[in-house]
Amino acid sequence: MTAPLKNDVFLRACLREATPYTPVWLMRQAGRYLPEYRATRARAGSFMGLATDPGFATEVTLQPIDRYGLDAAILFSDILTVPDAMGLGLGFAEGEGPHFAHPVRDEAAVAALRVPDLEKLRYVFDAVASIRRALDGRVPLIGFSGSPWTLACYMVEGAGSADDWRGVKSLLYSRPDLMHRILDVNAEAVCGYLNAQIDAGAQAVMVFDSWGGALADGAFQEFSLAYTARVLAGLKREHEGATIPRIVFTKGGGLWLDEMEQLDCDVLGVDWTVNLGHAREQVGRSKALQGNLDPAVLFASPAAVAAQAKHVLECFGPPHAGAQPGPTHIFNLGHGISQHTPPENVQALVDAVHSHSRHMRSEDASRAPRHQVLP
Amino acid sequence: MTAPLKNDVFLRACLREATPYTPVWLMRQAGRYLPEYRATRARAGSFMGLATDPGFATEVTLQPIDRYGLDAAILFSDILTVPDAMGLGLGFAEGEGPHFAHPVRDEAAVAALRVPDLEKLRYVFDAVASIRRALDGRVPLIGFSGSPWTLACYMVEGAGSADDWRGVKSLLYSRPDLMHRILDVNAEAVCGYLNAQIDAGAQAVMVFDSWGGALADGAFQEFSLAYTARVLAGLKREHEGATIPRIVFTKGGGLWLDEMEQLDCDVLGVDWTVNLGHAREQVGRSKALQGNLDPAVLFASPAAVAAQAKHVLECFGPPHAGAQPGPTHIFNLGHGISQHTPPENVQALVDAVHSHSRHMRSEDASRAPRHQVLP
Repeated sequence: MTAPLKNDVFLRACLREATPYTPVWLMRQAGRYLPEYRATRARAGSFMGLATDPGFATEVTLQPIDRYGLDAAILFSDILTVPDAMGLGLGFAEGEGPHFAHPVRDEAAVAALRVPDLEKLRYVFDAVASIRRALDGRVPLIGFSGSPWTLACYMVEGAGSADDWRGVKSLLYSRPDLMHRILDVNAEAVCGYLNAQIDAGAQAVMVFDSWGGALADGAFQEFSLAYTARVLAGLKREHEGATIPRIVFTKGGGLWLDEMEQLDCDVLGVDWTVNLGHAREQVGRSKALQGNLDPAVLFASPAAVAAQAKHVLECFGPPHAGAQPGPTHIFNLGHGISQHTPPENVQALVDAVHSHSRHMRSEDASRAPRHQVLP
Repeated sequence: MTAPLKNDVFLRACLREATPYTPVWLMRQAGRYLPEYRATRARAGSFMGLATDPGFATEVTLQPIDRYGLDAAILFSDILTVPDAMGLGLGFAEGEGPHFAHPVRDEAAVAALRVPDLEKLRYVFDAVASIRRALDGRVPLIGFSGSPWTLACYMVEGAGSADDWRGVKSLLYSRPDLMHRILDVNAEAVCGYLNAQIDAGAQAVMVFDSWGGALADGAFQEFSLAYTARVLAGLKREHEGATIPRIVFTKGGGLWLDEMEQLDCDVLGVDWTVNLGHAREQVGRSKALQGNLDPAVLFASPAAVAAQAKHVLECFGPPHAGAQPGPTHIFNLGHGISQHTPPENVQALVDAVHSHSRHMRSEDASRAPRHQVLP
């Protein structure tokens, strides 16, 4: 038995329904900028110790929910759990990013690649169930995965790339057949992974195409977008009677919004280079928009944070009202929150989004009758 | 006395005039991927020893011209010469990027900032004059500078930023007044610097806004585009009777092409995320386009390089013909060439661009009469 949801503002905005204020959550909201996260991380001993233990994962997922009035929780997990379950051997060197012991760099490695047994990812689904219990209906829980292309970036490079994704792009241009085979496997794996998260209790799912924007026009459509579309085609649409909204975020994907509108999903995430008003004109007829404050704004004063939050809300424009679905906005950053963020600035952000978006709705409501009496 | 120009295809394409083939040059074409560059660099002893000596700068500028049939040379210099002349103390640690001994991080440092005495940059203008003599009219020489914003990124950070430009963005959002003061000084300095390059013999000039694309929509217009516009407003339009084309390249600026079309320049450079055909529709009425092959293509086979070069040419579409100015394309990469590029692949690229673009023109010419007899 799961508790009834007390705050469904995020889920309603995902489905383009009118809401009393603009919901807000932050990518990577459970993370190193929070002292309570660092304390849990220290007890866990290692990042993987933290990410693979449902108890610890539950604890850190709820930390930003307890601290701020955020409108959604997101599963705490690593983006590379799926390739790890494929046997690539995920590790984290202290002070560095993730790396794979067995990167996929040649034809033999590609041929050996298999969709992983989901039992190897049981710890993720256990975490989802545990978080749902701990949330007790306060806010909905978002599950997530990296996109097939983004996973492939790390799988081929063996790690993140400082600049040019030389390894994965070399493979893409010299052996597109191998690249497609990797992406085939990834798409099937990601789809199964997200469906299992939904079964375990995720109330929305998000595909992070963090490195789609590194691709050239043409290559993006062929090697990233097409496989994200394949994942979406296989996703469960509802669970226990509730619709499961699907969010797709391509960092640096603003130029491809028209093509992303064709995706079978509910929400498109955009980064801070996108003008939200223009994006609403482009895709607001069919998609909710999520974003897009520059995370660097959070390094400024609380007053500057509040001013920039208002600017983002005003950029999106008049809140949708009425009973029919219409253009809606889910406030977020344009990328993950930085570990260097002062925690008090996040409170300033959440408060500003909630209060100013309520204010915009009351202004709109008070203006509407006046409009009606004008000639 | 300077020699008459033997190959003016690049300059004519900049001015949107029809050309017999699509000209090609590559950002950072004189660089570490060339063994002859590495040999000169070793003789110079250090990067700054190379960049500040007009003889060495001439030698490396001409190396790719001697090796390939490129249609333009670009001054070999560092992007950070101007802030170095301001007294910030540019240095290069072996194996690392540039750094400043005296970054501009507080109000006092900003207040102390001054437009540098151009005499401190005499070595650059001497290099321009020396390269012109050495080129002997083979191809035109492009001068360049970083944009005011891009210089400010390094000046505030004290170095390049691995990811988030935390320092410069913190300043931008918390003290926009200080940011504007830095950009004021930079704009005046860059303008004087480029005009002195023109006086010394640069036949076109390019503003590299390498980090404009890191900015949020709104911030880009205020802190980057406005200062690039100010530089352009102060540039000499001609020298010794010849028009000096002006090129602006904002890496990651594809979303702002409509606004960049308003710039008083001749050419807009675009990176590989941009669809050249769409960009031509957007801005081809008033601007030539430069770009935009992903430099990672050059890691593949020569055959793959040739195929991708054709793809870029076809994306731009039918070559402009006729006596009036029209949409033109200058082939380039979407960013600087990588040090890991096999030199033979550059030859494959240059050959493919020249031969396929000639082929497209002959096809168009042979089609035209047929079109004329159709109803």
